[in-house]
Amino acid sequence: MRRWALLLEYDGAGDVGWQHQDNGVSLQGLLEAAASRLNGGVSVPSVVAGRTDAGVHASGQVAMIALPDRYEADKVRDAVNFHLKPHPLVVLQAAPAPPGWNPRFSAVGRMYGYVILNRRARPGLERRVWHVPHELDAAAMAEGASNLLGRHDFTSFRAAACQAKSPLRTLDRLEVRRQGDLVLIRAEARSFLHHQVRNMVGTLKLVGEGRWAPAQVGEALAARDRSAAGPTAPPDGLTLLAVRYGQDPFTPAGADRTPAPACLR
Amino acid sequence: MRRWALLLEYDGAGDVGWQHQDNGVSLQGLLEAAASRLNGGVSVPSVVAGRTDAGVHASGQVAMIALPDRYEADKVRDAVNFHLKPHPLVVLQAAPAPPGWNPRFSAVGRMYGYVILNRRARPGLERRVWHVPHELDAAAMAEGASNLLGRHDFTSFRAAACQAKSPLRTLDRLEVRRQGDLVLIRAEARSFLHHQVRNMVGTLKLVGEGRWAPAQVGEALAARDRSAAGPTAPPDGLTLLAVRYGQDPFTPAGADRTPAPACLR
Repeated sequence: MRRWALLLEYDGAGDVGWQHQDNGVSLQGLLEAAASRLNGGVSVPSVVAGRTDAGVHASGQVAMIALPDRYEADKVRDAVNFHLKPHPLVVLQAAPAPPGWNPRFSAVGRMYGYVILNRRARPGLERRVWHVPHELDAAAMAEGASNLLGRHDFTSFRAAACQAKSPLRTLDRLEVRRQGDLVLIRAEARSFLHHQVRNMVGTLKLVGEGRWAPAQVGEALAARDRSAAGPTAPPDGLTLLAVRYGQDPFTPAGADRTPAPACLR
Repeated sequence: MRRWALLLEYDGAGDVGWQHQDNGVSLQGLLEAAASRLNGGVSVPSVVAGRTDAGVHASGQVAMIALPDRYEADKVRDAVNFHLKPHPLVVLQAAPAPPGWNPRFSAVGRMYGYVILNRRARPGLERRVWHVPHELDAAAMAEGASNLLGRHDFTSFRAAACQAKSPLRTLDRLEVRRQGDLVLIRAEARSFLHHQVRNMVGTLKLVGEGRWAPAQVGEALAARDRSAAGPTAPPDGLTLLAVRYGQDPFTPAGADRTPAPACLR
């Protein structure tokens, strides 16, 4: 058997998330079922960099599967894609997994994007957004976000169901900027707690609305209490953009890949 | 009654196009039905800048309707949007129509964008594209496109069903550029013949594949014969981006509006 690193893109709308669930089809289930078709029908387990929640999208998710030796990289990509049809989950690239490499534990950075559509009219074209009809102050949100940068106990932004042993995380980047009707948020860290990005976005929205002063974001962080921060933003606006590795199996590597599915017009 | 200019956004996937048809729901029908709810149920006819075909999208379509005097601009936008739910057709802005203004006949420019997703994997996230799995030479396509600029008889790029009196059109812009996996095409003219943009794109794809030399695009144009040019590109990748007016009812006006729903991440 040979281990393959897979670079994945998917639209999470309507799915139950990455992991197997009892209540519907999971992305993991779709991938493993497609891969099993290249393994004589025998099931193929997968490991993934980020187990995205139901409704969350990805343009740069990374997974690993093992397949019989006989396939070339392009064949792995094309054949898995063939068997994934018609689901909005595709393999962008397949590459041999480096020795000892693991998509989850070898990751040195994860980059998420969150998109708020900030206008009165609901979405007509771009559906992977959180629609906020009243005007947000993106500059105030950016100021609020700066309180979260660095190494902190992120208990206030952690889902009750979070299984991580420690609430300590180092947030390397949390940018907020307006682009026309959109408020674009980027978050980067080695790893995130469960719902951390969505809880940060839900809190920054309070700042954008003027209901919170930017400095209150820092106070919410210091409280180490989930109830001190804002609500969880919906999954629709969240996309896993890229996973970075010291030893990256893909070309181009990590962050260089990120801007790919960007400006459509 | 008061005449309103409406700036519209829609996802054309699955619709039958702008105009009323016997075989399904039209965008015109949806808009007029929603507007009639603000007119005591009495039908409200509309005029539109560009009658897009089935499957074609818009981020800057312009229409006009007349409504009883009692509404303010924001109320027109919000109330029509309320009645358009859940269809992916929304009013971005409503503005009083200037005296003598007509969305179709007052237009001095129409800008279309066409997006080709040029990679092996089919679309996972961006579905408003033409998926071309083999590599295209965007520079050659751009060179081919330059043959079409200016005032010409565009019979070779005109649908058989085209109702325009003259095949003469002035093409002001036809740009082709690569951005990662995407090949982005922009076309601008005062007006276009039926299927003109899609027929130009279908022809430029032959150049991108290396099946045609760039200069052959000029020969196809000179032939004034539909069979001399390439096939019609699918509607999925086409979006009406903006309509320009000398006297623009909207803020910001015309081309300034265009980049709005652009880079999502």
